Amino acid sequence: MKKYAFGIDVGGTTVKCGLFSTAGEVLDKWEVRTRTEDSGKNILPDVAKSVLTKIEQKQLPKEEIAGIGIGVPGPVDEKGVIAVAVNLHWGRKDIVREMEELTGLKVKAGNDANVAALGEQWQGGGRGTRDMIMVTLGTGVGGGIIVNDKMLTGINGAAGEIGHIVIEADGEHCSCGRDGCFEAYSSATALIRMTKDALIRDRNKESAMWKIIDNSIDNVNGKTPFDAAQAGDEIAQKVVDKYIHYLGIGCANLINIFQPDVLCLGGGISKQGDSLIEPLIKVIEKERFAGNVTKQTRVCEATLGNDAGIIGAALLYTNN
Amino acid sequence: MKKYAFGIDVGGTTVKCGLFSTAGEVLDKWEVRTRTEDSGKNILPDVAKSVLTKIEQKQLPKEEIAGIGIGVPGPVDEKGVIAVAVNLHWGRKDIVREMEELTGLKVKAGNDANVAALGEQWQGGGRGTRDMIMVTLGTGVGGGIIVNDKMLTGINGAAGEIGHIVIEADGEHCSCGRDGCFEAYSSATALIRMTKDALIRDRNKESAMWKIIDNSIDNVNGKTPFDAAQAGDEIAQKVVDKYIHYLGIGCANLINIFQPDVLCLGGGISKQGDSLIEPLIKVIEKERFAGNVTKQTRVCEATLGNDAGIIGAALLYTNN
Repeated sequence: MKKYAFGIDVGGTTVKCGLFSTAGEVLDKWEVRTRTEDSGKNILPDVAKSVLTKIEQKQLPKEEIAGIGIGVPGPVDEKGVIAVAVNLHWGRKDIVREMEELTGLKVKAGNDANVAALGEQWQGGGRGTRDMIMVTLGTGVGGGIIVNDKMLTGINGAAGEIGHIVIEADGEHCSCGRDGCFEAYSSATALIRMTKDALIRDRNKESAMWKIIDNSIDNVNGKTPFDAAQAGDEIAQKVVDKYIHYLGIGCANLINIFQPDVLCLGGGISKQGDSLIEPLIKVIEKERFAGNVTKQTRVCEATLGNDAGIIGAALLYTNN
Repeated sequence: MKKYAFGIDVGGTTVKCGLFSTAGEVLDKWEVRTRTEDSGKNILPDVAKSVLTKIEQKQLPKEEIAGIGIGVPGPVDEKGVIAVAVNLHWGRKDIVREMEELTGLKVKAGNDANVAALGEQWQGGGRGTRDMIMVTLGTGVGGGIIVNDKMLTGINGAAGEIGHIVIEADGEHCSCGRDGCFEAYSSATALIRMTKDALIRDRNKESAMWKIIDNSIDNVNGKTPFDAAQAGDEIAQKVVDKYIHYLGIGCANLINIFQPDVLCLGGGISKQGDSLIEPLIKVIEKERFAGNVTKQTRVCEATLGNDAGIIGAALLYTNN
């Protein structure tokens, strides 16, 4: 068994990098700026250079390095070819071949959300489970699905796009072009939209949210309605209830399909913790199929934050 | 390698039985009546007796029988215990243990819809694939999901309830108690409801459907709108378009989650063949995520009909 593995998480602004023991311990973490200019042609060379520099600095024997796992924002097929990565300005790219040539090390690649789910299953909220669904509530709704300890990738590496299942046919327009997607109701963006709508309707400014946002609707963020609801504001409570209603429908859909051990919530909104998860579980219990006669899926919070990507990427390699 | 396997498909009215070679060839097929009285206590003994009689009639050496695979209408856990089977009047039942004691043969059990999906993947519309979703459009919307050549069963054997994903939050009431389920829009029952609604609104009886149903709305069935639409009836065409719109949304949801090799349509409505599948593919192409940059899921018709259950059940055993 070799001693070391690298985990890389390529984002639109920075590339997160980690050096791990193959047992899963993080030994070092650092970041590289993502240079998206010129069709992102520098991104992989920059990462490769950074990895090789780290190997030299730490005087790691190359024969002790198992390989590099890398998560990228787009669909990655079984051979490690990404079809497109809009945020990186990439078209089709053979990531594995390119990184192997650049580093002389073995490389495996996966979709960033799927890889982060693998990280949460390995060391985070889904520790000790076999089947896990990760739902990330951020600017959009992302996700990753683990079945039998493996990422669900599908025929083309694009599986797990749980933000783009329609939960309200012909409903709210989604950034993907469809109408009524889960993401259009359950992202932080959607929560902010719902909150602003409620404030615009609140002509007499009765809501306690006005004070929190200093009377400026531009200051609304995902915490605003939760904070005000906690303080007893009814208008905010209604926004939170509506948001959790849709979130519960989407989560129950996934549970009815997969019946996983765990559904793990990540992303900014998940930081609301119990004030999100407890009422959410109540909605899910009402919405899930056959919940009364069978073992229940546990709903939990992700615990690894931004490190899920590099941890899962390292596992991607070492988990052979 | 042993020579024979039995495949059993337990339904609410009859139990379908098959004797197979372990290579997958059907050698004999027969049926047993399902006796649901007395909490269905006779069902498994009747099946066991029928299997033992067949073994005697055919003079099969018991040591050449690999085992019995059995599909039942309810969630079956990994140990072969069913939590409940409403149609059979069963509560919790240890099917595998009971059948093994009754027959002296090895037994494996699975949910009937999942087992039928396995059959379609082995010998039907999904032949040669690794990941397949089976969508059965009958009285309800059933389904089975195959990932990496294995049934997706989840933590409790209840996975794959694709009829009970909500596609229209707070929409049509579903028989499961939730509102807006895929089943409430895409089952034969839903199509009949939509057709009747259209006919009730057609006060001047302009639709050609009135002739097909002999002026009696009770005669509407799943073929009615398809037949009339084919003959150019606009009212019927609108019903068909609406039905396919929702069906497409539900199917695209599943594709966006799984990106399987194949989505296979079964059940009564699927017999409409190309007049269903061609427009459905158009809706799915519009609704699916990232369809333009990646390999596409193939949409096809199931080919095994009512035999899918016994074939998949036999495989359940022989596929070790």
